Amino acid sequence: MKILIDAGAFDEEPLLKLKNDFSNIEFVFEKNPDRVIEEIEDADVLICFKTSDEALNNAKKLKWIQAASAGVDFWPVDKLNDKNIILTTARGMHKSHISEYALCMMIMAARNIQDYIVEKQNRKITPGIKKQDEISGKKLGILGLGSIGQELARRASFLGMQVYGVKRTAQQTEYVEKVFDSNDMDWIFKNCDYIVNLLPSTKDTLNMIDKKYFDMVKESCTMINIGRGTTVNEEDLYVALKNKQLKLYISDVFAEEPLSEASPLWDLDNIIITPHIAGPNANYSEKFYEVIKPNIEAFIKGEELTNKYDLNKGY
Amino acid sequence: MKILIDAGAFDEEPLLKLKNDFSNIEFVFEKNPDRVIEEIEDADVLICFKTSDEALNNAKKLKWIQAASAGVDFWPVDKLNDKNIILTTARGMHKSHISEYALCMMIMAARNIQDYIVEKQNRKITPGIKKQDEISGKKLGILGLGSIGQELARRASFLGMQVYGVKRTAQQTEYVEKVFDSNDMDWIFKNCDYIVNLLPSTKDTLNMIDKKYFDMVKESCTMINIGRGTTVNEEDLYVALKNKQLKLYISDVFAEEPLSEASPLWDLDNIIITPHIAGPNANYSEKFYEVIKPNIEAFIKGEELTNKYDLNKGY
Repeated sequence: MKILIDAGAFDEEPLLKLKNDFSNIEFVFEKNPDRVIEEIEDADVLICFKTSDEALNNAKKLKWIQAASAGVDFWPVDKLNDKNIILTTARGMHKSHISEYALCMMIMAARNIQDYIVEKQNRKITPGIKKQDEISGKKLGILGLGSIGQELARRASFLGMQVYGVKRTAQQTEYVEKVFDSNDMDWIFKNCDYIVNLLPSTKDTLNMIDKKYFDMVKESCTMINIGRGTTVNEEDLYVALKNKQLKLYISDVFAEEPLSEASPLWDLDNIIITPHIAGPNANYSEKFYEVIKPNIEAFIKGEELTNKYDLNKGY
Repeated sequence: MKILIDAGAFDEEPLLKLKNDFSNIEFVFEKNPDRVIEEIEDADVLICFKTSDEALNNAKKLKWIQAASAGVDFWPVDKLNDKNIILTTARGMHKSHISEYALCMMIMAARNIQDYIVEKQNRKITPGIKKQDEISGKKLGILGLGSIGQELARRASFLGMQVYGVKRTAQQTEYVEKVFDSNDMDWIFKNCDYIVNLLPSTKDTLNMIDKKYFDMVKESCTMINIGRGTTVNEEDLYVALKNKQLKLYISDVFAEEPLSEASPLWDLDNIIITPHIAGPNANYSEKFYEVIKPNIEAFIKGEELTNKYDLNKGY
C-alpha cells in the first residue's frame, strides 16, 4: 500500500512518525506540486490540504483522501464521487483552537480592548474607563453546532454564558439551552449578546445572514464570523455597521479573501478584521497526526473511517 | 443603626434594594465628598470605594467599613487599626471578571491579534499568517493564588492549560499542578509559557519581579500584570522588553498610574498597555450588592464578617 502525503501546506515532521507506526506501508512525502501529480498515479491514499482536478485525473488506484482541513467546500467533490474516492476531513481537530479565538474575541469586545491597542500607538491612552463588561452571564448564540460549535458551547457555558444554538435540524445538544432550526432563528438574533457564526459554505447558507437579521440584533450585540464569508451578505453588513445596528463585528472570513483593499469595510471603526487565522495552528501537524493514525488503522482493517464527508449534506 | 454609602464611585441603583432588605436600618446614599465627611460623624457603617484620613477623623461611631474594592493598599489602614474599625474588602467579587481579562489576553498573545488590530488602521493586513498558537496544552504560572488566582486556575485548567502557582507559603491548591513558595519561584519563570501576576502591593512584593526573573523567562513567554504595578521593577522590565527576552508583556497596572506619557514603555512594540481596567465592571454594583447584603446580616447578628482585612498580612 502506498500513502502519498502532499506536505506542501504543513510541517511534515510530526507525520514522519507514521513510517514507524506502519512499517509495511510505503509513505511518500512530497512538497512539489508537479511531483505530487506524478506520485498520485499509483497511490492508494492521499493525505493533503487540498487537491486538484488535474491530480485526481492522474490517480489510478486512489481509494481514500484524508484532508488536512475541516472544510472542503472548494474541493472537486463531484469528481471524487465519480471516482468512488472516500473523502475524510480533519473535522474536530480545530475545535479547541477555534473556540479559543471566539472566547478571546468575545471578551475583547466586552472590554473594548481593541480601542486601547489602537490608542497605544499614540503613546497615550485616553483617561476614563470604557465600559468593561464580562461575558459571564451573557447570552451566546452559536450558528452551526458541529464539532467546533459544540466545543465552544461547552467552554462558554463553563465560563458562565447561557448558550443557544442553531442547527440545520434542531435537536437537543449538550451545553446548549435551546437549539433552533435554521429556518427559525430569529430568537437568536433578537436576544443574544454574542453571535458566533460557524456556518459552512453551502448553497443553503449563501448570503443567509442578511438585512433581515441585522435589523433584529441588539445594539449591544457583537457578531463573530469564523465560518465562511459567503454566509453573510456583505452589502447588508456594511449598511448595518454604518448605522451602528450592532456594537462590533469581528470577521476572520470574507466572501473574497483576502479582503480587497477597496472594500468599504476597512473604514468602519466597529469591525475587527483578521486574515483567516482562526483555523491555522502552530501545533497543527502534531494534532493532525492524532487524526491520521487511527484512520489509517481503520483503513487497513477495512473498518469505517472517521469524519467521512457526505456529498449530499455538503459537510 | 446608620449605614452611609459613599456612592461617588459606583452606580447606587442596585444598592437601593438594601433599604427594603433592612427596613430598620437608616441608609444614607451620598455622592458629594464634603457631605460624606459630615454624614460619617454618626454613621455605624461606611460602604465606599475609598476613604480619607479627613473623613475618618470625623467618624465618632464608625465600627465597620465595607470597601468596594478587593485591594485596599492605598487606604489609611493604620488609622483604622487605631480607631478599632473593622475593614472588609470586596475580595472574590472580581474573580470572574478579572479571570476573563487574563484568558482574553493570553489567547490574544498566542495569536498575535493585537498586530492585526494595529494593521487594520492601514486598511490592509499584511498577507501571510503570523504564528497562531493556542493556550490549551501550555503552562500557566499564576503569581498569587488568592480568590482571583484560584478562579483563573480553575478556568485555565478547564481550557486545557497546565497550571502552576506561587503562594506566600506553598500549599496544595485545587486545579494547580504544583504550588511554589514565593521565595522559590524560579521554576515558574523558567518553564511557563504564560505568567499572570496577581500579587498585591505589600512591602514584601515591592519590585519583586526584577532582572533576576526577566533573565530566566523563555523568549516565547507572555507575562500579564493585573496585580499591582509596584510589584515589578519597571526599569528592569524595560531592558528585558528592549532585549526581547520575552515575547509580550501585557500590563493593566503600573507603579505610577496613569502611566506617564514620558515613559519609554510606550515605544516598545512588545507591550500592551491598558489603563487599570481589569477590575472595573459594568455589572459591578449588582455584584457588590451580593457581597454587602450577607455582610450586613452578619454585622447585625454580631457574627464574623466575610473578607476581613488583615493589617499584618496586608491583604
